[in-house]
Amino acid sequence: MDMQGILEEIVEDIGLLGRHGEVASYIPSLGEVSPDKFGICVAMADGSVFGAGDWLTPFSIQSISKIFSLALVMSYDYDSIWKRVFREPSGTPFNSMIQLEADLGIPRNPFINAGALVVTDRLLTLTGDAAASVRGLLRSESGNPEVDVDDVVAASEADHGHRNASMAHLLASYGNLENPVEDVLSNYFKQCALEMTCEDLAKASLFLARHGVSSGGTPFLSPNQSKRVNAVMLTCGTYDAAGEFAYRVGVPCKGGVGGGIVAIVPGRCSVTVWGPALGPNGNSMAGIAALDQFTAKTEWSIF
Amino acid sequence: MDMQGILEEIVEDIGLLGRHGEVASYIPSLGEVSPDKFGICVAMADGSVFGAGDWLTPFSIQSISKIFSLALVMSYDYDSIWKRVFREPSGTPFNSMIQLEADLGIPRNPFINAGALVVTDRLLTLTGDAAASVRGLLRSESGNPEVDVDDVVAASEADHGHRNASMAHLLASYGNLENPVEDVLSNYFKQCALEMTCEDLAKASLFLARHGVSSGGTPFLSPNQSKRVNAVMLTCGTYDAAGEFAYRVGVPCKGGVGGGIVAIVPGRCSVTVWGPALGPNGNSMAGIAALDQFTAKTEWSIF
Amino acid sequence: MDMQGILEEIVEDIGLLGRHGEVASYIPSLGEVSPDKFGICVAMADGSVFGAGDWLTPFSIQSISKIFSLALVMSYDYDSIWKRVFREPSGTPFNSMIQLEADLGIPRNPFINAGALVVTDRLLTLTGDAAASVRGLLRSESGNPEVDVDDVVAASEADHGHRNASMAHLLASYGNLENPVEDVLSNYFKQCALEMTCEDLAKASLFLARHGVSSGGTPFLSPNQSKRVNAVMLTCGTYDAAGEFAYRVGVPCKGGVGGGIVAIVPGRCSVTVWGPALGPNGNSMAGIAALDQFTAKTEWSIF
Amino acid sequence: MDMQGILEEIVEDIGLLGRHGEVASYIPSLGEVSPDKFGICVAMADGSVFGAGDWLTPFSIQSISKIFSLALVMSYDYDSIWKRVFREPSGTPFNSMIQLEADLGIPRNPFINAGALVVTDRLLTLTGDAAASVRGLLRSESGNPEVDVDDVVAASEADHGHRNASMAHLLASYGNLENPVEDVLSNYFKQCALEMTCEDLAKASLFLARHGVSSGGTPFLSPNQSKRVNAVMLTCGTYDAAGEFAYRVGVPCKGGVGGGIVAIVPGRCSVTVWGPALGPNGNSMAGIAALDQFTAKTEWSIF
Repeated sequence: MDMQGILEEIVEDIGLLGRHGEVASYIPSLGEVSPDKFGICVAMADGSVFGAGDWLTPFSIQSISKIFSLALVMSYDYDSIWKRVFREPSGTPFNSMIQLEADLGIPRNPFINAGALVVTDRLLTLTGDAAASVRGLLRSESGNPEVDVDDVVAASEADHGHRNASMAHLLASYGNLENPVEDVLSNYFKQCALEMTCEDLAKASLFLARHGVSSGGTPFLSPNQSKRVNAVMLTCGTYDAAGEFAYRVGVPCKGGVGGGIVAIVPGRCSVTVWGPALGPNGNSMAGIAALDQFTAKTEWSIF
Repeated sequence: MDMQGILEEIVEDIGLLGRHGEVASYIPSLGEVSPDKFGICVAMADGSVFGAGDWLTPFSIQSISKIFSLALVMSYDYDSIWKRVFREPSGTPFNSMIQLEADLGIPRNPFINAGALVVTDRLLTLTGDAAASVRGLLRSESGNPEVDVDDVVAASEADHGHRNASMAHLLASYGNLENPVEDVLSNYFKQCALEMTCEDLAKASLFLARHGVSSGGTPFLSPNQSKRVNAVMLTCGTYDAAGEFAYRVGVPCKGGVGGGIVAIVPGRCSVTVWGPALGPNGNSMAGIAALDQFTAKTEWSIF
Repeated sequence: MDMQGILEEIVEDIGLLGRHGEVASYIPSLGEVSPDKFGICVAMADGSVFGAGDWLTPFSIQSISKIFSLALVMSYDYDSIWKRVFREPSGTPFNSMIQLEADLGIPRNPFINAGALVVTDRLLTLTGDAAASVRGLLRSESGNPEVDVDDVVAASEADHGHRNASMAHLLASYGNLENPVEDVLSNYFKQCALEMTCEDLAKASLFLARHGVSSGGTPFLSPNQSKRVNAVMLTCGTYDAAGEFAYRVGVPCKGGVGGGIVAIVPGRCSVTVWGPALGPNGNSMAGIAALDQFTAKTEWSIF
Repeated sequence: MDMQGILEEIVEDIGLLGRHGEVASYIPSLGEVSPDKFGICVAMADGSVFGAGDWLTPFSIQSISKIFSLALVMSYDYDSIWKRVFREPSGTPFNSMIQLEADLGIPRNPFINAGALVVTDRLLTLTGDAAASVRGLLRSESGNPEVDVDDVVAASEADHGHRNASMAHLLASYGNLENPVEDVLSNYFKQCALEMTCEDLAKASLFLARHGVSSGGTPFLSPNQSKRVNAVMLTCGTYDAAGEFAYRVGVPCKGGVGGGIVAIVPGRCSVTVWGPALGPNGNSMAGIAALDQFTAKTEWSIF
């Protein structure tokens, strides 16, 4: 299989298709990114890396960080996080508080904002600095020591973060936060504001395609834990479009409003695509089209 | 791999664990089944079949029939059913009408009752007799010409079917039924009341593990359609427990209140388990435990 | 106070304001009524009657019938209906099934459709013919022996009644109907299809302004029961606009999609207005404006 | 009518009935109050005052303060508050956020917490100090210059106020707060923590029974505004039990978790009852029973 050729074909096709959707603009610095950017990178289980388009341009990883904070908590604490967060699809838009209230403060899964706040809270207790701990994992797995928080984006998130603050206080009202609301929010906003390239992210998430084995060759997660993170990604990773992603793309994915999506083909590779214009469900329009083509061309759907 | 040995181990372990949960009793004939029954059958892609426990005892397939009516509609009509039913997890108990109302009569997916009624309605239009058409597929794929409807169960479903009647009228009020409510319900109750053994069901669903190829070797679904049915099963096949199944079992599954579950390992095999006692989400307790062991022992999780 | 003068002023003002809104058209015969019709009638506690505009033109009373079926059930059975229906405002559009499901088959109040179906079911058990029993009450209280069901409208309701059928089956699934679904629906559609003039309706509802005393001078309801029907009308009688009516009009009201509204000024009079064009909440636009003026001019708000 | 006798009878009867329910304990200082306390006070439109039981013991007015902040905002600003808050019953428990989200940040009415936060926000903008402004009104109308905030309770509310903080941030996320979240919360907690006796409260709310006329004889609200506050109290004043109150008591009421309830008989009197033990809807159990008796004995139901 000519992986480099496949990626270049995809970049060409996505360019021809044009980029539909809208760049996230709820915080000013996100809204400044050009909607015409598009990059793709594949990191193979054997360590080889292929990329095309704007695969070396950094972008804000946003909710993609939720994979890594979850993996970190599971690496420290195995299974105890599941007492505080469910792992079922949410069935409602990604930032809804309705189910949180109906379920008495237990978020539906770790990839909606409420669940990610609980995971960050737990990581904060376990490590003393959740955002630094996520950054540390991303640096070591990507091999790029310069991975860092964009402080302007982090400050912007905090300024526009009434909805996340509302959710954090609601979690606290149900006794489902261990740390002060302000500390949880500050860590959460920082980890969302990490900047990385497609290459960085593909390398950093490769452990999920290698049954938990880290870039250094040692187990970061057990094979069982790695499978389970992938299962939660497939059923819950793309907000209210998990069914659509499974149907069209057929592998576990996690997207962010910065326009990036990480996809895992278990045993084979991790893929990162980036296109800043978002569809109605908050996922990259170019990204989902590119992943659809990728699994069609490679026939690597898990189904 | 000694498949027969694996299945016998599972039967033994499940026996030791005991059977928790409750047999469905909303219709009298279902409630008469012993909760101690347990069977498992694996049909391999190459046609070989392995079974253990009560794998040759017939049971009511109930909602498992939804896989076959969906596959039939897709075989006739490719993709047009998706204008009338979504393919997203429901996030609420399996028979809820709340989302149906919020979504103006478009069911969340074809595996909740509302969605299955729409699929049955479409199949009725396409074939003139939806229940006979499902029975025909099951007979030809299982190789058992005696597969048939249990008329007592079908009549019982109709007598206790106010909830399904309510849903069908609600669909009709939104213009999402093509046939009279009574006809759709009658076909739906009949297809749910089909009786089959684990062996019958494992053979009949094998086409989903063989990329759509039927028992006769000809394509029933395209590879792409087969993948997509599997994707919908994984994200939506087990009511409100899709996330839990993906996490623990890691392959597409579809259960019924008769206690059966069909699982598909794409490219490898189909599995049917049967244990009549159900957990709180309406899935077989013994069945989920058995499938958990099966994918652990075989390492055939798709993640 | 010159009541006749007040009513004529109102007819003139409403004419100047014009009639906004849309005539109900979900059943064909309702849609044929001219939106320009407007009538008002006041029946005083002493028996005198005043009217203006189209006050002698018959119209379909629709949901206004719910007052009379409730009063009848209470007259036979005092308080036992409240075990099967709540008396709280619904907080959602008038025909929603969401709360019915959340409350396990107990409707929020007797004036939403689900609650009225339960009341009709009870009246059917108590009298053997709920629709005839409502018709009998309306004939005797209005003094008009020709009050009758419009059979074309009743048949039309049944033909377009999937939503009510859905609700009735849902009630039955929770065990909250005593009679067959078809019988309850048929009685319900008939009582909704009764035709009356403003004069008929003002006279027929006068017992609620006379502390339960019937046109014949004998108690139909006790003073306490009469108060309680008025209280339920005020809090629940106008679908999702009960707060708006209380705020603007300030007396108990019950409207129907035929464009009629009955208002009760306890101790003083009953008022009926009729204007077929409906606002977004399903209440007569001209009617609410007229009642607003009526209580302003008379200073008869109960607050 | 021997009003003093009526009140003494009620105190005796309520004593015989015993006090059911539970004292609010979400903040420690509220939980310390004895559930056996019971007081009642009636302030007549002519200025005479009658009291019985513990009518001179101060208690925390809590949500009863919402009447006064609403009246103040209406006195300054007539009707503009209704662009930011609806006046419909909520149909869900008093502190729910579900409807707030469904309605895009517009609370259902000014007497649920979300709506009261919006009213307090507006009052803060209008006066610069919402809590002081409420306190000023209560002092002048009750004639008791010592009415004041219990600082321990106010601090306690803030410490246990995650739910209100969550709601305030959600309102802010929809752009429905004019002032910083912290300032709105601090004013809100202070006005809820005001301490008053039954006598103070009956006198302070008398303007609503006198068509808006203040204790000094000057108009505080217009007659129309006064009616409208009463209408909103009747339909929305008692959380999810507005229908039950209208049915049993039959006059506008507003309760608080401190166990007080204010009731208004338009044109006649205001009544305050206090019994700290609450029923499932957050209203005083003894209070509702006492008001039921009061309107039965006086025959002053508005229906």
